Amino acid sequence: MSLKIALLGFGTVASGVPFLLEENHSKIVEAAHDTIEIAKVLVRDDEEKNRLRAAGHDYHFVTNIDDILNDESIAIVVELMGRIEPARTFITRALEAGKHVVTANKDLVATHGKELIQLAKDKEVAFYYEAAVAGGIPILRTLANSLTSDKITRILGVLNGTSNFMITKMVDEGWTYEDALKTAQELGYAESDPTNDVEGIDAAYKAVILSQFGFGMTIDFDDVAHKGITNITPDDVAVAQELGYVIKLVGDIREVASGLSAEVSPTFLPKTHPLASVNDVMNAVFVESIGIGESMYYGPGAGQKPTATSVTADIIRIARRIKDGNVGKPFNEFERETKMADPADVKSLYYFAINTPDKKGQLLRLAEIFNAEDISFEQVLQQKANGTRARVVIITHAMSQTQLASVTAKLEAIDDFQVLNTLKVLGE
Amino acid sequence: MSLKIALLGFGTVASGVPFLLEENHSKIVEAAHDTIEIAKVLVRDDEEKNRLRAAGHDYHFVTNIDDILNDESIAIVVELMGRIEPARTFITRALEAGKHVVTANKDLVATHGKELIQLAKDKEVAFYYEAAVAGGIPILRTLANSLTSDKITRILGVLNGTSNFMITKMVDEGWTYEDALKTAQELGYAESDPTNDVEGIDAAYKAVILSQFGFGMTIDFDDVAHKGITNITPDDVAVAQELGYVIKLVGDIREVASGLSAEVSPTFLPKTHPLASVNDVMNAVFVESIGIGESMYYGPGAGQKPTATSVTADIIRIARRIKDGNVGKPFNEFERETKMADPADVKSLYYFAINTPDKKGQLLRLAEIFNAEDISFEQVLQQKANGTRARVVIITHAMSQTQLASVTAKLEAIDDFQVLNTLKVLGE
Repeated sequence: MSLKIALLGFGTVASGVPFLLEENHSKIVEAAHDTIEIAKVLVRDDEEKNRLRAAGHDYHFVTNIDDILNDESIAIVVELMGRIEPARTFITRALEAGKHVVTANKDLVATHGKELIQLAKDKEVAFYYEAAVAGGIPILRTLANSLTSDKITRILGVLNGTSNFMITKMVDEGWTYEDALKTAQELGYAESDPTNDVEGIDAAYKAVILSQFGFGMTIDFDDVAHKGITNITPDDVAVAQELGYVIKLVGDIREVASGLSAEVSPTFLPKTHPLASVNDVMNAVFVESIGIGESMYYGPGAGQKPTATSVTADIIRIARRIKDGNVGKPFNEFERETKMADPADVKSLYYFAINTPDKKGQLLRLAEIFNAEDISFEQVLQQKANGTRARVVIITHAMSQTQLASVTAKLEAIDDFQVLNTLKVLGE
Repeated sequence: MSLKIALLGFGTVASGVPFLLEENHSKIVEAAHDTIEIAKVLVRDDEEKNRLRAAGHDYHFVTNIDDILNDESIAIVVELMGRIEPARTFITRALEAGKHVVTANKDLVATHGKELIQLAKDKEVAFYYEAAVAGGIPILRTLANSLTSDKITRILGVLNGTSNFMITKMVDEGWTYEDALKTAQELGYAESDPTNDVEGIDAAYKAVILSQFGFGMTIDFDDVAHKGITNITPDDVAVAQELGYVIKLVGDIREVASGLSAEVSPTFLPKTHPLASVNDVMNAVFVESIGIGESMYYGPGAGQKPTATSVTADIIRIARRIKDGNVGKPFNEFERETKMADPADVKSLYYFAINTPDKKGQLLRLAEIFNAEDISFEQVLQQKANGTRARVVIITHAMSQTQLASVTAKLEAIDDFQVLNTLKVLGE
């Protein structure tokens, strides 16, 4: 007898699952203690069914979800359609029907995970989503299984492959944002509407999920401040380089005295930081903790086979737990009271690029404004005076998010000063 | 009621366990579904007992292992003494007494793991040793739990912190081997007899264990060819730099058509390879596989808290599996027939540094010797002619271990040529 699964959707990732089941057959059977059989595949309509058949895919295709939900022989439903609807409805109905569910859908887990996790708990079925964060990197299971003994203080992650590809080109090749986006779209890394990737939204979804596994806190998407890479200029990239940093879009979740802080923002990373050499479409999650100290988990953040590997690992885990009689255990069991940090308590170094009139005394004026907010400078660079305007770059000492908001407001209120960019800097 | 454990030995790592149990109490209780209590601690003699008491350690110290083995309230024995004996005897007796065992002892697991794993299986108790490979990096559990869906083709690892510290100093600061060793000893990274670290023995032990988890094959220590860092010269380091490589001591386990190849050797890594930026005492395991493609797991390879974190993760896992009623499962369930590769089938690029007479026609003679063995050159550099002798550096195209042995023997048979060093090169 084999364990029967159904796939919802048969796009790129989905077709990676049969690849692994076949290429790695004996190892998977040994691990799952069972053969895994793709019993049914849900597709949109007859047209898609015919197209897939013509392409040589010989599955039992269905177009009605009920053909899967009412089939008692199917134990696991694997959702690989993406987006919120109809995935949310189908997963909800599958859990209600007592089926285990595996998904790679980060948008859905980040925005509706709470209700789905609770439903799975009530129904004593498994709801796993390793592939939802950093595709091929087994970071969620590692946090849930291996880092249980450790107390995590901060998670920093390069969590979006598309924006990391673009930013790598901007840093290594000096490309503009526009050039990088165009190439990313040509290579199929970025969609025609790249908003989710370049505005940090996709990374923020992942930060929501990492907060649960790393800190036991269920935060909302709106709790993650996100800022994208759209306004990074070649000037920012060059000055980072000059000062010994690399700019990356970094998800940063940390626990401070008052609670949890989660944000996604372009960040100056010291060149020697392990995340600084995570390039192109690769992802990495860097964990700071009281036990291990510093560890990093690196791999592809997306792609057919990497994502299918994580999905298949979830399927095997469920198969195994069915055999072991403990399949009802939640994917993540770490739960604490959720408390967001006070912004006055969340401190970082910051980079300011400010356009000033090129006349005497401007630096003194800037210094007075920062000083009034109790912010001191670590480094100051005055650049590119063109006769009428100059560009001043400041790296501050540690200051809070409250101080950042306040000093930015003050600077913006002064006509002479134009704040070109403000970016977080990771201290050495 | 709490779960009672006993520690064998109370050195540096052991004292990290109570640190975590205390500092991370609530998370550990939640994960283990139980409080973990250190019920007894085995020490060498009364003198050690008195010394530890005087230092404020308030445990139930015993000097006779029977006081632990005969105590039915103790469920888990945690061995942290190191070396082979008496650790082997104590673990054997603990397993025979039906106790679960956790150890960080790589020497023991690599050389006697087979018999201990079998004994644990027979007794249906757990025998876990996450800390035995790469200290704080949860690589074994990741291979056993998350990479079950994937087929691993190669594992490359920087597996020894001491030698990596030394080699980092030799590369970054231009230190000699002798200077690096002296500093490593002063900092407490290297022992007074550094043989195990600098000769690749410690890394070879870890390669034995990684072979089981990554490839399902139980190989012997003698199956791992090991070569250390003792004969790396500043000239080797400089030429690597010049050609775009970094030298690291790398454990390399790969499956080729005829079977498994495992070796530890100083290796030229392209500067862009993720392992190339693993510096100082840090370790990393780089995995190539058909599903994920490339992934890397990075962290501290040793140290009190990192090692104690892995040990405590094992303890929690056992506690949890006792509750779940499936504690008898082996740590690694992946098993295949063990077959070592034919050396003619294991191919790499190689670096040769050869001392030749500084007279006409020597390069031609060398080219003829390599050509006779069917080995072609990727790069050739002639360096430092001092009037009588010259230094020729060759990077070959891929060649087998058989070819390597054969060409080396031919070169050594010719009085004019002196092979200064031969190192593996990882192709881009």
